[in-house]
Amino acid sequence: MQSTALEKQLAFLREIDRLKTVVRQSSLLDKSRKENSAEHSWHLAMYALILSEYACGPINKNRVIQMLLLHDIVEIDVGDFPIHSESSNESQTEQESRAAERLFGLLPQQQGNELLGLWQEFERAETDDAKFAKALDRFQPLLVNVFTGGGTWIESSVSFEQVFSRYGPIIKRGAPLLWAVCEQWVTRHFGE
Amino acid sequence: MQSTALEKQLAFLREIDRLKTVVRQSSLLDKSRKENSAEHSWHLAMYALILSEYACGPINKNRVIQMLLLHDIVEIDVGDFPIHSESSNESQTEQESRAAERLFGLLPQQQGNELLGLWQEFERAETDDAKFAKALDRFQPLLVNVFTGGGTWIESSVSFEQVFSRYGPIIKRGAPLLWAVCEQWVTRHFGE
Repeated sequence: MQSTALEKQLAFLREIDRLKTVVRQSSLLDKSRKENSAEHSWHLAMYALILSEYACGPINKNRVIQMLLLHDIVEIDVGDFPIHSESSNESQTEQESRAAERLFGLLPQQQGNELLGLWQEFERAETDDAKFAKALDRFQPLLVNVFTGGGTWIESSVSFEQVFSRYGPIIKRGAPLLWAVCEQWVTRHFGE
Repeated sequence: MQSTALEKQLAFLREIDRLKTVVRQSSLLDKSRKENSAEHSWHLAMYALILSEYACGPINKNRVIQMLLLHDIVEIDVGDFPIHSESSNESQTEQESRAAERLFGLLPQQQGNELLGLWQEFERAETDDAKFAKALDRFQPLLVNVFTGGGTWIESSVSFEQVFSRYGPIIKRGAPLLWAVCEQWVTRHFGE
């Protein structure tokens, strides 16, 4: 029996409940536990809502919010790839693309294609909307590390230079004024 | 020393990290633990993104998404008031209003007032946007209860009639077609 559009949409919304069980490297600011990818996505959408004036160029705030709401759902199939890990980028990209096709494929075709397109735009990071979204996705964990006294930088023995090279270009490209603040924080944190 | 706009915005974004520690009555669909209000807000924003075609009237999907992202942040100060509790509605409303003023008051004035207005619009539930947002905020926990075999209805000894009266009017008003599905689920669940 063919599923109705609504049945497909509800199946998708039930499936993505699992993003709440994907645990990231970053902790909450109170250090009580690690953050999960669903609450991280909520927080990033709030970052976009509040900080849109710092984007690199003219952006559509609501598209950025939508992008950030769904940017991590592929982690339901492939897990979180930490920024400081050594995993192969090629295999990660392939796995995430397959996951995106499976997940957005649960939706009615037109809606699924639209959201898959938005996810792909985020991944390619060529538009101003996507560049700003990517910048926030780097800015939030950096902020957490600074305000928890080091966080994943200490756990993974990350150096001052590595922070600059792993976060800097992406944050600076999408939100230069936010990177200026990061430079001050990171310099102070590492006592440079 | 006066804080800059950006300093205020970052203080707000750090403060709302605490929404991740507010635990709701509903569990995750896999029943592994209770849901928190931050990941609940993410999921509701996704519900709005996916289900906007079922709204009662002409809505602005992006305003609804924004509303749902921030609808629960007052719980940082006052906690979650469960739907099946006996708390006084008057005192709840007062406490939540004070919390909204404190939290949105952390932001630069104009931005804070805009978002406070959006939160108040949600609470008043008079516009189509707010009615649809309120409907989703009832629909999601109902779905969780149905797909976890009873959930909070069993824990709080909630009857068939109470489910109809506590969820029905609000879901039906904002999203009549979603309520039609709920009626089937709830009737089957209670074996009526």
